[in-house]
Amino acid sequence: MSDIPGWKDKILFTPGPLTTSRSVKQALLRDLGSRDFEFISTVKDIRARLAAMTGAANEFEAVLMQGSGTFSVEAVLSSCVAPDGKVLAIVNGAYGKRIVQMLRVLKIDHTIVESAEDQYPDLHTIEHALAHDKRINFVAVVHCETTTGIVNPIEKIGVLAKAAGARYFVDAMSSFGAVPIDFNAAHIDYLVSSANKCIEGVPGFGFVLARRDALSATESFARSLSLDVYAQWKGLERDGQFRFTPPTHALLAFHQALRELEQEGGVESRAARYRKNYETLVAGMRALGFEEYLPRERQGYIITSFRYPKHKNFLFEAFYSALNNKGYVIYPGKVSNADCFRIGNIGRISESDVRDLLRAISETLGELGVC
Amino acid sequence: MSDIPGWKDKILFTPGPLTTSRSVKQALLRDLGSRDFEFISTVKDIRARLAAMTGAANEFEAVLMQGSGTFSVEAVLSSCVAPDGKVLAIVNGAYGKRIVQMLRVLKIDHTIVESAEDQYPDLHTIEHALAHDKRINFVAVVHCETTTGIVNPIEKIGVLAKAAGARYFVDAMSSFGAVPIDFNAAHIDYLVSSANKCIEGVPGFGFVLARRDALSATESFARSLSLDVYAQWKGLERDGQFRFTPPTHALLAFHQALRELEQEGGVESRAARYRKNYETLVAGMRALGFEEYLPRERQGYIITSFRYPKHKNFLFEAFYSALNNKGYVIYPGKVSNADCFRIGNIGRISESDVRDLLRAISETLGELGVC
Repeated sequence: MSDIPGWKDKILFTPGPLTTSRSVKQALLRDLGSRDFEFISTVKDIRARLAAMTGAANEFEAVLMQGSGTFSVEAVLSSCVAPDGKVLAIVNGAYGKRIVQMLRVLKIDHTIVESAEDQYPDLHTIEHALAHDKRINFVAVVHCETTTGIVNPIEKIGVLAKAAGARYFVDAMSSFGAVPIDFNAAHIDYLVSSANKCIEGVPGFGFVLARRDALSATESFARSLSLDVYAQWKGLERDGQFRFTPPTHALLAFHQALRELEQEGGVESRAARYRKNYETLVAGMRALGFEEYLPRERQGYIITSFRYPKHKNFLFEAFYSALNNKGYVIYPGKVSNADCFRIGNIGRISESDVRDLLRAISETLGELGVC
Repeated sequence: MSDIPGWKDKILFTPGPLTTSRSVKQALLRDLGSRDFEFISTVKDIRARLAAMTGAANEFEAVLMQGSGTFSVEAVLSSCVAPDGKVLAIVNGAYGKRIVQMLRVLKIDHTIVESAEDQYPDLHTIEHALAHDKRINFVAVVHCETTTGIVNPIEKIGVLAKAAGARYFVDAMSSFGAVPIDFNAAHIDYLVSSANKCIEGVPGFGFVLARRDALSATESFARSLSLDVYAQWKGLERDGQFRFTPPTHALLAFHQALRELEQEGGVESRAARYRKNYETLVAGMRALGFEEYLPRERQGYIITSFRYPKHKNFLFEAFYSALNNKGYVIYPGKVSNADCFRIGNIGRISESDVRDLLRAISETLGELGVC
């Protein structure tokens, strides 16, 4: 962030909040009224651009929801699952587990298909679960599990959900905008992401891309006033306004971020930049002696888990702090059965930033005596 | 907003989002990691400053909650009322009604004491309700009803709640930071406000000031994962971090806003500025022939409802648009039994801004032929 006068912020190699462009941050510098014409037209354009990203704009509605991305995930579960609905939750990491935690607190009936964190969900088990429990009418899965960086096969799972007549919900928090998603091929009914991920905005809200015919049938399903996707949609449709105070500044920044995504060439171009970041990172880390947690074929290019080196001098806290002091923020691990840390490849970072990080990691290993 | 290079934003005479200072907005220009040391220490200082504002920092915890202020109100109701709890909801405006709406959606047992929008809640009725229904263990009231601008007698109601052994919740969304509140005299257990009100930050989160002994007893009360005040508190206490991605930029701005509140001389000084704005506004509006909706003795200095002039040429939409085009944003009315509009006196606005607004209103009346 050397382009901001007055300071040089650290570069964020995390799953978010991310390093954003200077122009995205400058869009924050305005106080607009939430019922002001200019703000309403900005929100309208954001919703149209997001709906267009489904590739089926006529069939999808973009509903913006205040709070972190998790609030949007909970909003879908708590207001789009029928009162007597039953959810199949597919779990291979912490974010799948979080969905289960929500279902428990919300007292929504559910069944779980769980696999190891380094494995894809088992399609036969999913198919079997759907075939043997006709009460399941909603399937939930995480696209890119930030726990490991694995990218789950959402199309194959969607085909099974569709065949069983269940609604299909994809938590694409850290993939949407960077991994091309075919909404119709995957039979997606609901997809959630948030402002501060691959669209490269700042945090403050999430969004739900909802198939209109699914969402239309959810009136009065809500288990909360705030986290009601249907009511939020109807509010936005009625007068273009949020039901409750929106994070106006974060929305202005997001609007700019969407324009910059378009300028970059859209999702495919952004994917190419992130993939290049990832390839540079992994090649460099391997050269330094690090190993990834996941086998390459299941590893996405969003975030990568690296195993701790076996060297006795490696202490993660010291490693993290030294990099932090050099201006590079990495991320602790979340894998349950191995000591790992994570490095993200997303946000307004380029291959040269990754090379700078690799140089700093190399220096730090020397300083810590991990050679 | 003439102090931001590149544009002159409209001045917001609304209940929020508000006009904020240039320095508050400039604090938005940084991308900090949500688990970064610097961010964690900022959050810690924000919590300490908010707790200190209760005047009883040792007895209160400040819990920050993502989303709009309404999310924080719902978080208190959905996670601080026991599973078998019963709430007395005191209503004399739209925000009291919103609390009732939440209780309905959350399926929390409740009883309502309602009075007209221009009247204070009736203390005898409240006392009677508490005496005759021993199941009521939670009382909820709005401090400044933004519907009209009335400021409810929260101390008197708190004494009744305390006498009945009920927990007491004050929705002080639009008053906290501008109206001195004696937390102990009012026997407040929970108070909610949000970032973009009288602290003069930008929207993105709300906060709960919770009496520790009350909050400590609410573990596992939550009816939602996201809107769980107890879990959010425990998360912040454990490692200084939010459970889910916080709006980092809005928090940096809020931290700056708290420092500016201190520089201004604290709540009493801010109250004096807002009161001066209010007095200038009302004197000027009366001189232009407008009448307030509320009798003066029940009118707070946060926001004022004015009746539409009886002149046949007055059309609110035209009046609003003309003022908007001149750079002044006012607010539509919300009173149910009278045609009103509202003008707020809060945010980074001064008496001279109010005088500018009055001049613009006078001009607009001339242009519309309302004389």
